[in-house]
Amino acid sequence: MKQIEGGILAAKGYTASGICCGIKKNRTKNDLTLIYSEKPASAAALYTQNLVKGAPLLVTKKHISDGIARAIIVNSGNANTCNADGIEVAERTCEILAHELSVAPEDVVVASTGVIGQPLDVTPIQSGMGSLVAKLSREGLDDAIEGIMTTDTVKKQAAVELEIAGSTVRIGGIAKGSGMIHPDMATMLVFITTDCNITPEMLSFALTEDVQRTFNMVSVDGDTSTNDMVVTLANGLAGNRLINSKGEDFELFAKALNSVTVSLCRQIASDGEGATKLLECVVTGGKTLAAAKTAAKSVICSSLFKAAMFGADANWGRVLCAIGYSGADVDVGRIDVSFRSAAGSVSVCRDGAGVDFSEELAKKVLSEKEIYVLVDLNDGPFGATAWGCDLTYDYVKINGDYRT
Amino acid sequence: MKQIEGGILAAKGYTASGICCGIKKNRTKNDLTLIYSEKPASAAALYTQNLVKGAPLLVTKKHISDGIARAIIVNSGNANTCNADGIEVAERTCEILAHELSVAPEDVVVASTGVIGQPLDVTPIQSGMGSLVAKLSREGLDDAIEGIMTTDTVKKQAAVELEIAGSTVRIGGIAKGSGMIHPDMATMLVFITTDCNITPEMLSFALTEDVQRTFNMVSVDGDTSTNDMVVTLANGLAGNRLINSKGEDFELFAKALNSVTVSLCRQIASDGEGATKLLECVVTGGKTLAAAKTAAKSVICSSLFKAAMFGADANWGRVLCAIGYSGADVDVGRIDVSFRSAAGSVSVCRDGAGVDFSEELAKKVLSEKEIYVLVDLNDGPFGATAWGCDLTYDYVKINGDYRT
Repeated sequence: MKQIEGGILAAKGYTASGICCGIKKNRTKNDLTLIYSEKPASAAALYTQNLVKGAPLLVTKKHISDGIARAIIVNSGNANTCNADGIEVAERTCEILAHELSVAPEDVVVASTGVIGQPLDVTPIQSGMGSLVAKLSREGLDDAIEGIMTTDTVKKQAAVELEIAGSTVRIGGIAKGSGMIHPDMATMLVFITTDCNITPEMLSFALTEDVQRTFNMVSVDGDTSTNDMVVTLANGLAGNRLINSKGEDFELFAKALNSVTVSLCRQIASDGEGATKLLECVVTGGKTLAAAKTAAKSVICSSLFKAAMFGADANWGRVLCAIGYSGADVDVGRIDVSFRSAAGSVSVCRDGAGVDFSEELAKKVLSEKEIYVLVDLNDGPFGATAWGCDLTYDYVKINGDYRT
Repeated sequence: MKQIEGGILAAKGYTASGICCGIKKNRTKNDLTLIYSEKPASAAALYTQNLVKGAPLLVTKKHISDGIARAIIVNSGNANTCNADGIEVAERTCEILAHELSVAPEDVVVASTGVIGQPLDVTPIQSGMGSLVAKLSREGLDDAIEGIMTTDTVKKQAAVELEIAGSTVRIGGIAKGSGMIHPDMATMLVFITTDCNITPEMLSFALTEDVQRTFNMVSVDGDTSTNDMVVTLANGLAGNRLINSKGEDFELFAKALNSVTVSLCRQIASDGEGATKLLECVVTGGKTLAAAKTAAKSVICSSLFKAAMFGADANWGRVLCAIGYSGADVDVGRIDVSFRSAAGSVSVCRDGAGVDFSEELAKKVLSEKEIYVLVDLNDGPFGATAWGCDLTYDYVKINGDYRT
């Protein structure tokens, strides 16, 4: 397996495009994205568990219920959530696109991201659709990524290539996500394409397994979005023998998928609203998997710990505090904590109590852009990793006037 | 019942003092506080549910197990948590004070607040104890409050006077709390004294009932402290007939206690780290009490909503979003939301969808210092109130360099 370029266009048989149709007020960035598979693809998706669900999510769920899709259309700038006519607008969007592409509306996946509770006018989407479809190409990656961004500051993509039983298979994805990120059984907006030949059932199985330890372990601000969605398409053009059960081929695919999703997780956390640092909390020694996951995620979610990381302050007491209130089954008297980065490593807590350490070294370690928080629960064989970012002035600034 | 001055010294038979003994590095503010009852008092307490517990909490729990206490000693500047010798230092503190006061060490309540994981040196406490005891007086309120403050910017106190069966009873309290506030079966540091004649059992019952709807409904930053504690002393000097069961007298006492605790809750939330606004979320129409409480608390805890309030942005979608992911049993399609303050009232959402409203009026309403977020779930008879504050640049600033 190797990392390659191309994101969602790395795999065979996909094209993409993005345009600025006028949903975003400033009209300087794309706000409408299309991803298209030249042949019908196995499709799988997971959605937010927030009871408040964006209308596009409900429409997508219906369209994808047969396990097949051809196209994904996404707008940014408006979440189409909590609107009386939301479903109607999402369905109309699919119909307009389906007509333009000569596919069935039921083969269209639709997603929206942006402000909640403002009616989404379908007019600019309708006006732009011809141009959006006309621009579909193998070079449309950048335009497509731009069209799904809101407060994101960098474009997020990843792709890998691997061999499965002699066939070259590619998997690639793009992601949007910067704030309101605290997935629960799903994630931000993530679109993954592959040319792997795999049944909808096995694709769904692979995605569901993977999301538990990737996107569900990312938190930027503890707020679970109403519009989270991760969608994968697999069009089979790699020509590998069909993956229709567990086994060696499936394992290879799942591992490669994980490589793409972990990369996207790290990119999303790095670009958390206002973030200056990526935090990766690696918990080992858990008595149960749940204990390891709960502990890792609680550390990543603690506002106090995140603010300390912004200030490069080795305030490990906040790590223990966050594990203590997490509900995880741990023995707090056995916990070891250390911080690691490109600048070195510093052990700060052993058996639940502080150890002498160099404040100077700790400051250097924590002044890097990527910080590993290593927690050993010393209580069993289970481990888990969670990703997050520091809490900064800019998070407050961005969210103090996002809507207006 | 009427509001009165005096905090913990409003009731008969209590004295207090506070000194700067040298635990806080800068030595400009008090860091050691003593509250003393001239006769043994019924005592009740609740503690944090964080698995990581400050050593003083464990010692207090033991000392208070017989339902009786005489004195409360509190230091700020160091939490005495996650220290190998923590219990020993807390016990030694009680012994030194007990010797000075000629009471039993088991009648001393001890509490600490400040940085976690730095050894607490008992030397300055020992050196200062004589002076602390010598300064005990009926005028010691301000000194005592100052001695329990960390990042607090204002002194928090409340007191009421009421008649119970012809006797005048007073209840008063002081509180410390600004960050790491997200109580779970207990609260920040709160000390309440009363001259009411009440058994330890009924005092404990009243406190436990009250905390569920007061301190447990406050959140500043979602981080449950390791040292939370609320302690009440009742020395009986009001001379009212003994309250040893439920009934009219108990109800009067409980109502007055609630008046003190609600006032302290509002003061704590107002003075949340970096806060510029008090947020009070009033949920009505819940199908269950749990649904109303969970919804109210989730709104108050949402970083996105809190940042929007800082920016006076009527982003009600974030209110719905927070209720949606809270786990509360609600029908999101029936929720009404409005904002109210001294500047007026504005309805922003009806039946889960937006309504037209004046952005100008909303901005005026949300620019006040006390904001009510009114949520009607339209789903039943239960209600709940939660208190919090906005998320500001200063929260990040305070917590980026708290320890160093």
